[in-house]
Amino acid sequence: MPLLGLLPRRAWASLLSQLLRPPCASCTGAVRCQSQVAEAVLTSQLKAHQEKPNFIIKTPKGTRDLSPQHMVVREKILDLVISCFKRHGAKGMDTPAFELKETLTEKYGEDSGLMYDLKDQGGELLSLRYDLTVPFARYLAMNKVKKMKRYHVGKVWRRESPTIVQGRYREFCQCDFDIAGQFDPMIPDAECLKIMCEILSGLQLGDFLIKVNDRRIVDGMFAVCGVPESKFRAICSSIDKLDKMAWKDVRHEMVVKKGLAPEVADRIGDYVQCHGGVSLVEQMFQDPRLSQNKQALEGLGDLKLLFEYLTLFGIADKISFDLSLARGLDYYTGVIYEAVLLQTPTQAGEEPLNVGSVAAGGRYDGLVGMFDPKGHKVPCVGLSIGVERIFYIVEQRMKTKGEKVRTTETQVFVATPQKNFLQERLKLIAELWDSGIKAEMLYKNNPKLLTQLHYCESTGIPLVVIIGEQELKEGVIKIRSVASREEVSGGSRNRRDEVFLPFPDSVRNMHLLAEKLSSWLIVVEMNKHSLKMTIAACEY
Amino acid sequence: MPLLGLLPRRAWASLLSQLLRPPCASCTGAVRCQSQVAEAVLTSQLKAHQEKPNFIIKTPKGTRDLSPQHMVVREKILDLVISCFKRHGAKGMDTPAFELKETLTEKYGEDSGLMYDLKDQGGELLSLRYDLTVPFARYLAMNKVKKMKRYHVGKVWRRESPTIVQGRYREFCQCDFDIAGQFDPMIPDAECLKIMCEILSGLQLGDFLIKVNDRRIVDGMFAVCGVPESKFRAICSSIDKLDKMAWKDVRHEMVVKKGLAPEVADRIGDYVQCHGGVSLVEQMFQDPRLSQNKQALEGLGDLKLLFEYLTLFGIADKISFDLSLARGLDYYTGVIYEAVLLQTPTQAGEEPLNVGSVAAGGRYDGLVGMFDPKGHKVPCVGLSIGVERIFYIVEQRMKTKGEKVRTTETQVFVATPQKNFLQERLKLIAELWDSGIKAEMLYKNNPKLLTQLHYCESTGIPLVVIIGEQELKEGVIKIRSVASREEVSGGSRNRRDEVFLPFPDSVRNMHLLAEKLSSWLIVVEMNKHSLKMTIAACEY
Repeated sequence: MPLLGLLPRRAWASLLSQLLRPPCASCTGAVRCQSQVAEAVLTSQLKAHQEKPNFIIKTPKGTRDLSPQHMVVREKILDLVISCFKRHGAKGMDTPAFELKETLTEKYGEDSGLMYDLKDQGGELLSLRYDLTVPFARYLAMNKVKKMKRYHVGKVWRRESPTIVQGRYREFCQCDFDIAGQFDPMIPDAECLKIMCEILSGLQLGDFLIKVNDRRIVDGMFAVCGVPESKFRAICSSIDKLDKMAWKDVRHEMVVKKGLAPEVADRIGDYVQCHGGVSLVEQMFQDPRLSQNKQALEGLGDLKLLFEYLTLFGIADKISFDLSLARGLDYYTGVIYEAVLLQTPTQAGEEPLNVGSVAAGGRYDGLVGMFDPKGHKVPCVGLSIGVERIFYIVEQRMKTKGEKVRTTETQVFVATPQKNFLQERLKLIAELWDSGIKAEMLYKNNPKLLTQLHYCESTGIPLVVIIGEQELKEGVIKIRSVASREEVSGGSRNRRDEVFLPFPDSVRNMHLLAEKLSSWLIVVEMNKHSLKMTIAACEY
Repeated sequence: MPLLGLLPRRAWASLLSQLLRPPCASCTGAVRCQSQVAEAVLTSQLKAHQEKPNFIIKTPKGTRDLSPQHMVVREKILDLVISCFKRHGAKGMDTPAFELKETLTEKYGEDSGLMYDLKDQGGELLSLRYDLTVPFARYLAMNKVKKMKRYHVGKVWRRESPTIVQGRYREFCQCDFDIAGQFDPMIPDAECLKIMCEILSGLQLGDFLIKVNDRRIVDGMFAVCGVPESKFRAICSSIDKLDKMAWKDVRHEMVVKKGLAPEVADRIGDYVQCHGGVSLVEQMFQDPRLSQNKQALEGLGDLKLLFEYLTLFGIADKISFDLSLARGLDYYTGVIYEAVLLQTPTQAGEEPLNVGSVAAGGRYDGLVGMFDPKGHKVPCVGLSIGVERIFYIVEQRMKTKGEKVRTTETQVFVATPQKNFLQERLKLIAELWDSGIKAEMLYKNNPKLLTQLHYCESTGIPLVVIIGEQELKEGVIKIRSVASREEVSGGSRNRRDEVFLPFPDSVRNMHLLAEKLSSWLIVVEMNKHSLKMTIAACEY
C-alpha cells in the first residue's frame, strides 16, 4: 500500500467517499472531468496494492451485538416469560427465519414496506419474517391443525427508520403465546390477559395497565361517525398512533393526509377520549349512536363477558376499556389489548422512562383462512410480550443502581502458588468438570498467585481450590473463600474435615453440590446462611 | 371464482403449471400458439376473479418448521450442551442474523457461493451469517477484545444443494464455544477437546472418536509431496472430502479437476492413510520427508504437547491423530479436530445411522487480524457441536423405540363433572397459576367429564383436580391420579387430609410443589417413589 499506507484513517475514508460520488454537475455523461480520471487511476492502484480493503467494521444499520452482560439480563427475563407460557400449557415451536415473500404480503397493512427481502439468487422469492403471528397462521393452515396452544420465542426483522432510541432495533426478539381453535367465547381471550398480568407482575416492572378494546367496536365507531368503509384500515392506523401523538396531530393526519371530513374526525375525537372499567361497557351499550351498530354491539357483548372472567381471575382492576386503542396490524378481528407501564415517580438520578407498550395482542379469526385453499378458518387469539423494551428498562434500572451482573457461573477456580504445577491443576480441574462443578483456571504454565486471585475477584468466582507443594506432600487441598479470604485445608487420608465458610452472596442461588471426586471427596452443602464443605481423601 | 371454483385442486395446480410453462417449441417468439392465447385469457380472468392467489403453502426450500415434538428433543440437548459450556466458564453472546456482505466474503474458501444475500433495498449490502465464527472474530476486532471465552447458540444459513437427507437443512442451529487470547500453547486447545468429550459422553450417543491433525502438518505434507503452494487450499478442500468419498475419487478430483500431478497425489495418498495415537506423532517426527519441513515440525511438536494434556484430562484414548483430516474452511491455522460417532452394531429394526461428524473445530489465529485495521492478531481456538445431526440421531432412536415425548409440562388439569361450573373452574385454575402450578382446563362452558379425562390421558397430564356440586357443598376438592385412576378428596374446614398417590412416571422430574392457595391448601410433595398430597381448606 505505498500510497494509502501514508494516509491517516479519516483522510482515507473521505477519499473513498469521493471515489464513490456521482459525476460532477458540469460533466456530460460520456466525458469525465480530470479529477475523476485521477480518482479512477487511484482506484485501480488501490485494487492492485491493497489486498484487504480497509472497510469499516460494524454491524448492519439498526442492529447490534448482544454482549454477555445483555445476555444475562435476557436469559433471566426470557426464563420467566417462557415458564409462564409453560404454566399455561403451551407447547414450543419454531419456524424458519424467512418465508416465501407471498406468505407475508398483504398481512401487515401500511407497514408491509418494512420487510427485508432476500436477493433473488435463483429459486424462490423470500423475505425475513416480520412477526411470529403470520408464520404461525401459515403453519396451522399448512398442517391442517385446528387446535393448538403454542409459544414461540424468536427474532423478527423490520426495516424501520433508524431511530435507535429506547431499545428499538431492526432485529429484535418477540415472545408470542397464541391459542388457536374454536372455543366458547372469551375464555381463551381472558387467559391471554391473565398471562400478560402474570408476566408483568412477575418481572416487577412497577404498576401497569392493560387497555382493552374490540376491532368490531372500532369499526362500529367509524361507521356511526361517518368514516367511509374504504378508509377504515387507514383511519385505524392513525388512531393507533394516539399513544405517541397528541389528538390534534392525529386529527390533522386523518383530515389532511387521509382526506377525512373534519366533522367526522371530531365525532371520533369524542369517543377516543373514553376509557374506564366495565361500567363504560354498560354506558356504551346505551350510547345513542353506537347502540345502533350491530358489529359494535357484538363487541360490547363480548367485552362484558370478558370482564366477568377477568373478575374471576382477580385481574379486573388492571384492565381499562379504552376506545382509543386500535392496534396497527390489519389482521385483528375481535378483542385487542395493549399493556402499558404506569410512570413511576422518578427517583433521584433515574432517567424518566417512557417506553410505550410492553405487551399487546388480540383476536385474529381470519388469518389462517387466508392461507387455506378452501378458506377454512381457525379462530385465534394471542399476545406478544415486548421483551426488547423490557430488557431496556431492566438494563437502565441496573445501570442507575450500579448493579453488576456476573456473566459466568463459575463456582470454583483452580489455583497454585508454585511453578510447574500445570499438570496437577489440569488433573484436578478435569475431576471438577467431570463431577459437574463449574470450574476455571488460567491458561498459563506458571501464573502468579496474585493474578489468579485477582481473576476470581474480578469475575466473581466464590471459591478457590489451591494446590501446591505443601498440599501435595500432605495429600490435602486448600479451599479459600474469595470474599472472606478464609482458608481451610483438608482431605488427608486419615480424617474427614468439615469446614464451614461464610456464605458468599454471589452464590446464593447455587444448588447443592455434592460431588465425589476420584482423588478427593469434596462435599459442598449450602443453606441460606452458610456453606459447609467436607473434604476427605478417597481411598483408591 | 366462477371458473376456477369448479376445478378440483389437482386440476387447478396442473392448470397453473401450464400457465407458467415457456412458449412451445413450434412457436416463434412473437406469435403465440392458440393454446397459449387461451391460457392468457384465463390468466386475466384469474386476476379479475381471484383476489387471493391460490399459491402453494410451504416453507422455503431446504427449511422446515420445528414442531413441538422437535422442540422438546432440542431443548433437552441444547440444555446439556449449554450447561457444559457454562461449566467451562464461557459467557453467552449473540450477533445479528445478517452481517455486512464484505464482513463475510473471502472467509470460507470454496463455499462462499452458498451465502444468502439480502436484496439491495437501499443502504448496506447484507448477507445472512454463514457460521458463528466469523461474526465472533468481527466482534472481537470491532470491540478490541483481546481475551474472551464465549459460547454462542444460533441459527446460520447456507444455500446448499437441497439434499435433505439425514438432517441437513439450509437453515440450521450451531452451538459454538471459543477461547480467544494469547495463552501458553495447547492448554485452551486441550480444553476444547475435553468439552467435546464431555458433551458426546453426556448425550449418550454411543462410542465416538475425535480425529486430530494440524493445518501446519497438512501444509507441510503438501509441500514435501510437491503440491504447488497456490493449490494448497484447493487440495485441502479435496482431502476434506475423504470422510464421504473414497480415496480413488478424491484422487481423481485432485488430478483431473484441480490439475495435480498423479505422482504428487499418490505421495499424499500414502500419508492420508496414517492414523493412530501419540506414537504416530513420534513416528512422523522421524519421517524422512516430513521431518525436513519446519511447519510440519511445529505442528507435530504442538500435537505431542496436546496429547500430554489430553492424558492428564483422561481422554487420550478418545483421540486419534489422523493425517487425512484437513477441514474445509480456509481460516484454520493450527490444530484441527473432528468427532465422529463409531457405528454401533445395528439393532433389530434400527436403520443404520451414517451421520458423519458430530462436532468439529480448530485453531484460527489469523481471522481476527483480517478485521483489525492494523492487522492486530488475536489467537483463537474453538469448536462447534453439530447439534442438527445429534437432534436427528436422537429423534431416529426415539422413533425406533416408539418413545413418546410430552410436548407440554402441565401438572394439573381442572375438571368438573357438572354443567355451569365454569366460574368455579376459572377461580380454581387462577389460584393454581398464581401458585406457580402448571395447569390447564378446557375452554368450554360445559365440557363432558369423559372428554376432560381423555384430554389428560392423551396429553400426559398426571393429576386432575375435580370440582362439582358435591365438592362445593362439602368444601373440598377431589384429586385424581390419571394413571392409576385413584381418587381422593379433602380440604374440609375441620380436617387436614394427607393423601398418598402412586407416583406417576411421567412426572418423575417434576420438582417439589408446595403451594398455598387462598381457598385450599394443596401441598404436593414428591420423592422418588410416591407423591404425598396434603389438602386442607384455609381459613379466610
